[in-house]
Amino acid sequence: MTDRSPLTRPFPPLTPIGGVTLRVARAHYKTWDRADLTLIELVEGTTVAGVFTRNVCCSSEVEMGRKQVRLGRARAVVVNAGNSNAFTGYRGRDAVEAIMAQVAAHLGCAPSDVFVSSTGVIGVPLPQDKARAGVAAALSAPATSWEEAALTIGTTDTFPKGSGASAMLGSTRVELAGIIKGSGMIAPDMATMLGYIATDAAVAPAFLQEMLSKANQESFSCITVDGDTSTSDTVLLLATGKAGNAPLEGWESPGADAFYAALRQLCLDLAQLVVRDGEGARKFITVSVTGAESDESARRIGLVVANSPLVKTAIAGEDANWGRVVMAVGKAGEPADRDRLSIGFGGIWAAREGMPLANYDEAPVAAHLKGEEVTLEIDLGLADGRATVWTCDLTHGYISINADYRS
Amino acid sequence: MTDRSPLTRPFPPLTPIGGVTLRVARAHYKTWDRADLTLIELVEGTTVAGVFTRNVCCSSEVEMGRKQVRLGRARAVVVNAGNSNAFTGYRGRDAVEAIMAQVAAHLGCAPSDVFVSSTGVIGVPLPQDKARAGVAAALSAPATSWEEAALTIGTTDTFPKGSGASAMLGSTRVELAGIIKGSGMIAPDMATMLGYIATDAAVAPAFLQEMLSKANQESFSCITVDGDTSTSDTVLLLATGKAGNAPLEGWESPGADAFYAALRQLCLDLAQLVVRDGEGARKFITVSVTGAESDESARRIGLVVANSPLVKTAIAGEDANWGRVVMAVGKAGEPADRDRLSIGFGGIWAAREGMPLANYDEAPVAAHLKGEEVTLEIDLGLADGRATVWTCDLTHGYISINADYRS
Repeated sequence: MTDRSPLTRPFPPLTPIGGVTLRVARAHYKTWDRADLTLIELVEGTTVAGVFTRNVCCSSEVEMGRKQVRLGRARAVVVNAGNSNAFTGYRGRDAVEAIMAQVAAHLGCAPSDVFVSSTGVIGVPLPQDKARAGVAAALSAPATSWEEAALTIGTTDTFPKGSGASAMLGSTRVELAGIIKGSGMIAPDMATMLGYIATDAAVAPAFLQEMLSKANQESFSCITVDGDTSTSDTVLLLATGKAGNAPLEGWESPGADAFYAALRQLCLDLAQLVVRDGEGARKFITVSVTGAESDESARRIGLVVANSPLVKTAIAGEDANWGRVVMAVGKAGEPADRDRLSIGFGGIWAAREGMPLANYDEAPVAAHLKGEEVTLEIDLGLADGRATVWTCDLTHGYISINADYRS
Repeated sequence: MTDRSPLTRPFPPLTPIGGVTLRVARAHYKTWDRADLTLIELVEGTTVAGVFTRNVCCSSEVEMGRKQVRLGRARAVVVNAGNSNAFTGYRGRDAVEAIMAQVAAHLGCAPSDVFVSSTGVIGVPLPQDKARAGVAAALSAPATSWEEAALTIGTTDTFPKGSGASAMLGSTRVELAGIIKGSGMIAPDMATMLGYIATDAAVAPAFLQEMLSKANQESFSCITVDGDTSTSDTVLLLATGKAGNAPLEGWESPGADAFYAALRQLCLDLAQLVVRDGEGARKFITVSVTGAESDESARRIGLVVANSPLVKTAIAGEDANWGRVVMAVGKAGEPADRDRLSIGFGGIWAAREGMPLANYDEAPVAAHLKGEEVTLEIDLGLADGRATVWTCDLTHGYISINADYRS
């Protein structure tokens, strides 16, 4: 891994999850001296949910994963690092099916119970010989830790990312642990986000999907580094049921709210870690939008602001340039009224109801912008819609990572 | 003006347009040693059409201009440089109305015949005393050239931008001349694009608007520097009728097609000049999209590709990274099929129908990418929709201009 992002966080202590075994191996997808294949083995009866990229040019892994989650069962996940297998036509699909068959034969399950993700170079079909040897090595490798798995799924990430949570379902304590990779990108790789969350709770597949989709809307769908959407983005949620709770079937099941709260927090943690490893990031930016026509309108406005190169460079330059924020709000195409709009930084209004504040004191705002954690407040003054999105600044580091090399 | 863009073009010789008088003056909107107020005086009977920013947080100038063009008449245009008068509430509107009244009194016309545009610092109401003195000075200033006017409407532009054209309407030759500013931006200014096109042709206002709107769709609406949309973007088309042709009333009028062809070419020239002065631009990029479901779908895909930071940085790095182009096509949300998609650079396919070409020779592509003029071809393989859009690369220069200063 290259220099750590200045916004890095230490890897937290994560509890092992009953029914989950992690293993890693060297498939040598690239000429590097590291493990690059991760196997997550899951006990029989594990349920699964997933959210995937909306990019219409998605990878074979994503196309197949979308179908597999509808069946609701999982026995294993294989994650390849170093080759994304994207844009490789039928040969890419063959490589995925070979891995599914190999693992299914070993575990005695259906191939559709085996999920595959890949991240790395595009346009090169995943080499089947390397994958076969790597999977064989992983199947017989000793169990390892979440941190080791987080390192192994990473490509150009500058630090391993994980988070844990727990919840009480009646008198049963359940644990959640998750890892994620993404946002670093060098050479011809793509900035794919891959996340895996496991829990020992028992949860019916349909409800598992409902909760993951809902949590995703408030976490992974609220982050952006550069507005570019990978063809392979995937988050899987795996529930082994080993905690022994009465299965959660819906919101009325005892403990469902507690479980969702823990899941939501974990998704938020993981999503924010991806932003903290954003390419060239030097500042972690929280954009809070209030007073919008609806929550969804607020989220859209927040993402347009968070993706605006002019806003991101202003914050990189520690410049309280609220005019650029006004511009970005206006271009979102969502309901907004220039003369009701208020913009603040670090909790201090710079402009209210369409005009700069007469007694605006820039000194505390300037001090806030010098920090690593910047907040930007936007109030539309229209209704009660609200959302929070997270991004990072746009710096010379981003240009260096993405322009100053040849593939 | 700062260092000229490496993509600069010399200002062309432009014919004076009958019925148009250009004057400039020093309003001292900023502490600079240059003319910063431009007055375009128009003979009685001049018709007008306009296209304006879609940013919902637009300036008072734009709000009023939209209403004024519906009346179809113009006697003068005043362009302020150094203060955008945007986000200034009722005080900004008062300043615009004062200028309209002052010029109308002098020319003996209705205030609604006087158009005002402003570009520069935001959040500061245009100082009425400076505007009044500047307008008075301009009204008594000697006539000047298109090049002088192009320099005066500029703010952080690195070179003056203009283009001319002519057309035969039956046996009558008509002339067109246009100037434009935009794409440079330093300090708390916004990257406003302001364009003014004059012709001595006689054209009915409704048809003038129809032609400008149509030309705009293929020119100004097909360029992007960073996807950020100013609150003040304006292009006005002014037709004095001094050439003496029978007024163009619609597409069936003799010479209408010739006039539109000249207008379209002029709009294309002006639009491309803005891209050539894009902040930090080192490469002029033409994105050609073919095989889309419709022309509009092709344009949308082209703009998403042209706005993708990953595509723009790849071209800055002279890297034929077609994978990033696939990603950008996929995120556009328009109809696309990964396995029919072809991507090329400089007329050479790198990937066809979803896979890299087996015999792809990168050498000529690499040579093409080293040049200042880069073309990117995208074929969707679905239908006959096509569009061309223009942009520039994303470089350290962009970050330096927009982040490495304090407002």
